[in-house]
Amino acid sequence: MKIIIIGSVAAGTSVAAKARRNQENVEITIYEKDSDISYSGCGLPYYIGEDYIKRDNLTPRTPSWFKKRFNIDINTQHEVIDINPSTQTLTIRNLATGDLFQDKYDKLVLATGATPFIPPIKNLNQKHVFSLRNVHQADSILNFISNHAPKHAAIIGSGYIGLEMAENLQNRGLKVSIIEMEALPMPALDPDVSVHILKELKNKKIEFYGNETADSILHFNENKFVELKSGKQIKADLVIVSTGVKPQTELAKNINLQTSVHGAIRVNEHMQTSIDNIYAVGDCAVAYSRIDFEPVWVPLGSTANKMGRICGDHITGGSLKFEGILGTGIFKVFDLSVATTGFTEEEARNKGYNIAVHHNFKPNQTEYFASSSEMMIKMIADKDTGKILGAQIIGKNGVDKRIDVIATAITFGATAEQLFHLDLAYAPPFSTTKDPVHYSGMVLNNAVKNSNPIITPYELLKNRQDYQVVDVRSSKQYNDGHIEGAINIPLPELREKYNQIEKHAKVVVHCNKGVTGNAAQNLLQNLGFRQVFNLSGGYKNYKLYLMAKS
Amino acid sequence: MKIIIIGSVAAGTSVAAKARRNQENVEITIYEKDSDISYSGCGLPYYIGEDYIKRDNLTPRTPSWFKKRFNIDINTQHEVIDINPSTQTLTIRNLATGDLFQDKYDKLVLATGATPFIPPIKNLNQKHVFSLRNVHQADSILNFISNHAPKHAAIIGSGYIGLEMAENLQNRGLKVSIIEMEALPMPALDPDVSVHILKELKNKKIEFYGNETADSILHFNENKFVELKSGKQIKADLVIVSTGVKPQTELAKNINLQTSVHGAIRVNEHMQTSIDNIYAVGDCAVAYSRIDFEPVWVPLGSTANKMGRICGDHITGGSLKFEGILGTGIFKVFDLSVATTGFTEEEARNKGYNIAVHHNFKPNQTEYFASSSEMMIKMIADKDTGKILGAQIIGKNGVDKRIDVIATAITFGATAEQLFHLDLAYAPPFSTTKDPVHYSGMVLNNAVKNSNPIITPYELLKNRQDYQVVDVRSSKQYNDGHIEGAINIPLPELREKYNQIEKHAKVVVHCNKGVTGNAAQNLLQNLGFRQVFNLSGGYKNYKLYLMAKS
Repeated sequence: MKIIIIGSVAAGTSVAAKARRNQENVEITIYEKDSDISYSGCGLPYYIGEDYIKRDNLTPRTPSWFKKRFNIDINTQHEVIDINPSTQTLTIRNLATGDLFQDKYDKLVLATGATPFIPPIKNLNQKHVFSLRNVHQADSILNFISNHAPKHAAIIGSGYIGLEMAENLQNRGLKVSIIEMEALPMPALDPDVSVHILKELKNKKIEFYGNETADSILHFNENKFVELKSGKQIKADLVIVSTGVKPQTELAKNINLQTSVHGAIRVNEHMQTSIDNIYAVGDCAVAYSRIDFEPVWVPLGSTANKMGRICGDHITGGSLKFEGILGTGIFKVFDLSVATTGFTEEEARNKGYNIAVHHNFKPNQTEYFASSSEMMIKMIADKDTGKILGAQIIGKNGVDKRIDVIATAITFGATAEQLFHLDLAYAPPFSTTKDPVHYSGMVLNNAVKNSNPIITPYELLKNRQDYQVVDVRSSKQYNDGHIEGAINIPLPELREKYNQIEKHAKVVVHCNKGVTGNAAQNLLQNLGFRQVFNLSGGYKNYKLYLMAKS
Repeated sequence: MKIIIIGSVAAGTSVAAKARRNQENVEITIYEKDSDISYSGCGLPYYIGEDYIKRDNLTPRTPSWFKKRFNIDINTQHEVIDINPSTQTLTIRNLATGDLFQDKYDKLVLATGATPFIPPIKNLNQKHVFSLRNVHQADSILNFISNHAPKHAAIIGSGYIGLEMAENLQNRGLKVSIIEMEALPMPALDPDVSVHILKELKNKKIEFYGNETADSILHFNENKFVELKSGKQIKADLVIVSTGVKPQTELAKNINLQTSVHGAIRVNEHMQTSIDNIYAVGDCAVAYSRIDFEPVWVPLGSTANKMGRICGDHITGGSLKFEGILGTGIFKVFDLSVATTGFTEEEARNKGYNIAVHHNFKPNQTEYFASSSEMMIKMIADKDTGKILGAQIIGKNGVDKRIDVIATAITFGATAEQLFHLDLAYAPPFSTTKDPVHYSGMVLNNAVKNSNPIITPYELLKNRQDYQVVDVRSSKQYNDGHIEGAINIPLPELREKYNQIEKHAKVVVHCNKGVTGNAAQNLLQNLGFRQVFNLSGGYKNYKLYLMAKS
C-alpha cells in the first residue's frame, strides 16, 4: 500500500507517524510545497518577539529525521497541482526545478492547512505589509525589523495572532495600534469577556481602534499610514494583516470534494472525505462539536494533531475515531491569559438553548500569596438539562488549569451540580479551599434549579423598568457609584430594613462581585420574597458591561 | 429548629453557612474550644515561613462577622464535654470562666476535626518541641524562633506538613533534618514517585534520615539532639513532630457512634451518623472512594468544606449528597509540586486490580520557553476496563493543572483512550500541542489493549532473566551507563540489525524516557516479534527506581 500525504505541518506528519507506528510494510510519501516541515505555527509570534527562541526551535524536525526514524519520504518544495481520483494519480511540480511528474496512491490524505484571509485593502502589496502563517513570513518580519527599524506597527484584526503580535512587537520596541472591524478585540468571545482584553490593551498603551475598517496603505514621502474607512490615519511603518484564515481547499474543489461550514472539507469520524480513498485532516477539514454534534471549523494545532493520528490509524486498520471538539482555545496577551471552551453565550442563545449565565470573580490561589490574582470565569449552563455548555476565563494565573478542567467536565456531559463535587487538588500555593470551578458550579446549579436565579447586566438593562434594584454594599461603596435607580441597604442591615423593598416586585440584589449579593438573595427569599435575582458578577461586572457597550 | 455544631474550622462553619443560606428561621449555635475560628490550617507552614503572611490572613473571619452576615452564634473557648443523645442535651464548659451549662439541640453536628498523632518518643514534652495543627501552635513556633534563634531543626515525619515545614524553616534560616520511619519521604506515594522528592531534598541540602525512628529528645548542656533508635544523634534546637493525625472522636466514642477506617466516624451520603439527629463532617468523619466506594479517611480541607455544605443542606431540607473522593492532594516542596489522585500503584495492586502502569516524562509547556520544565506523570489504568485508577505527578510547573484534569476525568469514569480525545487548551506558553495528559492516555490505552505492552523497572527486575533487553539509544548514551545485560542497537540501525535479537524471546526495549522505545517496539512488532515490552519511563526512570530501592 502506498500512502501519499499532501502537507507536512501538524496534521500531515501525524498521519505519517501513526501509520508507520501501526505498519512497517506501507510506503509513505509526503509532498510539501514549502521548504519547512512540521513547524510550530503557534510559536511564530514568540519567535518574532523573543530573542531566546531560535528558528531551529520552531522547526525541530527535518525530512532526514523522518526518514531515519519512520522511513517516511518527505519531499519539500513539491507542489501537488492535480488529483485524478479515478486513476488515483497525482501530478506534482518540483518547485526547485520546475519539473512535472506523476505519482500513484492507494490512500491520499489532504493536509493542506489554512491560508490567511486577506481583506480588500488598497495598496496592500508593499514591502512593509505582512501576514503571518509560516516560518518564512516570520523571518521576513524579523528581517524587516532589523533592517528598517520600524517604529510604529499597525495590526489589522485582533484574533489570536493579532493580539499575540501586539505583545511581541511591543517587546521589540514598536508602538502598536490595532484596527478591528468589531467594537472589541477577539470578537469570537462574548463582549463582556473581550472588554477585559480591551482594558489590558489600554493598560499596556496599545492603541485600539474598534468598529474601524482599514481602507488603504498610504505613503507620504517617508511617512507611512494605514487609512481607515472613517478617514483616520494610523502611523504604521510595519503592518500585520491578521484578519483570520480560510481553509486551503483548491485541490479539493477541483475534484468536487464535499465541503461544509466555512468551505472546509467534509469528513466522517475516520477523516474520510466524500471520495473513496481520500482523507482530509487538520485546518482544511471540518470538525464537529462534542456538545451538539453540529459541524464546526476551529483550525487549531491541537485538533490537527488528533485528526492526523486518527487518520493514520484508520488507514492502517486501527479503530480510532474522531470524537469532536469543544473549540477549546487559549492565548496570552501581555499579563492576561484568555481561554474559552464550548459555546459562548451568544452561540448558546443562537442555538436556542435556555441558558443560565454566571460571571465568577475569584482569586486563582489563596489570597495571601504574592502571586494571587483575580480571574473571571463566565460559565454557561443549559437550564433544561443542567449541563455545562461553555466557559470563558480571563485572568493572570491559573486560567489554563480551570479551562482544561471545565473542558474535561463538558466532554463527559457534566452538570453544574457535578462540578461542585469534583475532588480537585487544594493547597494554598495552588488554589482556594473551594476552587473557582466549584463556585461556578454551585452558583449555576442554584440558578438552573431556580432556587437562586441570576440575572446578567444585559438582561437587567433590557427590561430595567421591571426590576427594583437593591445594592447591598456599604453606603460608602454605593456613594462612590451605583446602578441608576438602585436603593442601598447594606447586607448587615437587611434583616431590619427589608420592609423598604416591595415584596411582590421583581427584585435584583447585588454586591460588588456576587457573593454578598447571594447572601442577600437567600435572606430575602427566606423572608418570603418570591422573585429575587442576584446580579451576575455584581457591580464590578456591571461596570465592565457598560464599558463593553460604549 | 436548633442546630448545634461542635467545631468551627472548615467543616463546622460550612455547615452553619449553608444551613442559614437555606433557612432564615433556624437557630444555629457553634461551640468551639479554641479561640480561633475558620482558620486556614493548610496555610500554617507558610505563615511560619513567609513574612508577608500575617495572622489575620489565616483567620479572616470573626464570630461577629458570622453573627452579622449569617446570624450564627459562635461561642469560642467553649468545650462540649458530654452529649446525651436521648434527651438531645449537651454539657458545655466555658473555658474562660470554668462554668458548666447545658444546651439542647434538634440537630447536632460533630466537626471536631483531627488531632496530631504523637509517637512514643522519650522526653518529648519540652519547650523546643512542637506539633502543628492550629494557629496557636504556629504562633508558638514563630515566637520560639524569634526568641531563641534556633539553628538546627529536626522534623519527625515527612508527610505534607513535614515537607512543607522543611521548606519554610529553611526559609527562616534553619538547617533542617527530616527523620522518617519509611525509606523515602511522603510514604503515602509510590516509591518511584517519592524518590523524586528525596532528590529535591538532597538538592536543597536537607538532611533526610530514612528508615529511622526517633527515640528520645536529648540535652547536653546547651546542645540539643534527637536520638534515633539506630543510635544516631541529630542536632536539633527546634523539633517539629509531624507524624500524621488521627480523628478527634472522644465525644463520639462516649456515645458509641459507629466508626470506620482509622476510627473516623461512620456517616452516610448525607453525613448522618449511626444515631438519629447527629451528623459528623470534616476530618473526624469517614469518606468513601469515588472509584470503588470503599470507605477511606483522607483528612483534607477541600473535603471538609464539601461535607459541611452537604450536611448543612440536608439538615435544612436540601438534596445534596456526598459523592465520594479521590484523595486528590497536592503540596509544594521547594521547587517541586507533588500531586496525587485516585489509587497509587500499591493501593491498586493491594485491591487486586490487574493494572497497567506508565511513567511519562514530558515538558509542561513548549520547550523553547524559559519556564519550561519536565514533569513526570505516573498513571495507573485498569487493564480489565481501561479506566484510569489514579495518577501521581511531580514537576516544577503545571502539575496542579494535570492532576485536576485527571481527577475530573476519573470522576466521570474516563478510560485511558478517552484522555487522548480531550480537547484541552493549547498555546505555546501553556502546554505542548499534545498535552502530557494526552500522551499518558495514548500510551496507557495501547498498553491496556495489549498492542504496546509496557513493563515497569520493578516488573523487569523481578524476573530479569526472562527478558532480553535492547537499549535503542545512541552508543554514546549506552556507554555512559546501561541496564546490566542489555544489548545496544540504536533505533536508526534497528531496521538492519534486528536479527541480533532472539525473535521468540520476551524482549524489553528502552530509550531514555520512553518515546523512542515506543518507536522501537512498534518496529519490532511490525517485523514479526510477538512479545515486545517498552520500559516505562526508559533508562531515566530505571535509574530513579534503583535509587529508590537502595
